[in-house]
Amino acid sequence: MIVLGIDPGYAIVGYGVIEVVGSNIIPIVCGVIETPTSESIPVRLAMLDEKLSVLIKKYLPDAIAVEELFFNTNTTTAIKVAQARGVILLNAIKQCGELYEYTPLQVKMALTGNGRADKHQMQYMVKALLGLDEAPKPDDAADALAVAICHAQTTDFSKRVLN
Amino acid sequence: MIVLGIDPGYAIVGYGVIEVVGSNIIPIVCGVIETPTSESIPVRLAMLDEKLSVLIKKYLPDAIAVEELFFNTNTTTAIKVAQARGVILLNAIKQCGELYEYTPLQVKMALTGNGRADKHQMQYMVKALLGLDEAPKPDDAADALAVAICHAQTTDFSKRVLN
Repeated sequence: MIVLGIDPGYAIVGYGVIEVVGSNIIPIVCGVIETPTSESIPVRLAMLDEKLSVLIKKYLPDAIAVEELFFNTNTTTAIKVAQARGVILLNAIKQCGELYEYTPLQVKMALTGNGRADKHQMQYMVKALLGLDEAPKPDDAADALAVAICHAQTTDFSKRVLN
Repeated sequence: MIVLGIDPGYAIVGYGVIEVVGSNIIPIVCGVIETPTSESIPVRLAMLDEKLSVLIKKYLPDAIAVEELFFNTNTTTAIKVAQARGVILLNAIKQCGELYEYTPLQVKMALTGNGRADKHQMQYMVKALLGLDEAPKPDDAADALAVAICHAQTTDFSKRVLN
């Protein structure tokens, strides 16, 4: 099973692709989708949509896992990230019927057993679970791999988005 | 010039189409796009995307004007509406090169001369400017017509989104 994990953002979107073979998790690729700050938000959303389509067509994931947003302070940033997340959800549901959403707490629980794990602990577990020599960079790519691993680890598929 | 105005929302999206002929503004159609609350957010985003595509293909607007979001309290609601707004912006920029964004203050200024005008004053002006006997219903449809009228009234095209 190929799983694409996505860490939503408006300037930078992290992605990570893993293959799950039995109880093994094999890293395939990870990286980030960036859009130029010189462009308007709608144009950047269209660029993100296009780049995400290329990614999905290339790796043909069996499932896509997208992290949910959690903001309690800056509404302006929340709106920008949420607009991008809307585009990501639309693209994912159109191209891949198996769409799942996980909260940051669920991702941390799945990887470390602690819903309040810090960034270093998460990076350590991404590295360990994927058998890598170093934690993937940048952080957004590692975060996206964590979401994909969370999907592979969890047996609770109650959050599946049916279409 | 045909202008499509959009009032973004996640449960209900208002739309209003007007034709601008010289200094006359003629109402063409207005209404709302609703999606069933029984469906997941990604599925509802896909439904919104599909319905908006049908609308744009039917009325072939020369310009699309979308209201900007303003929230200072409920971040959860802001995130849901912003996800839908991201889908709307993507659809609009892909189908119509002429995409404009206006803040609630700009819309109120354009229609009433007062950036803090209340709902009744706005509805009165939408009715008056379009030569209608009654204010359009529901409110979301009237709000969308207001955004379209704002675009027709304003001579400040600095907010044009180039693609």
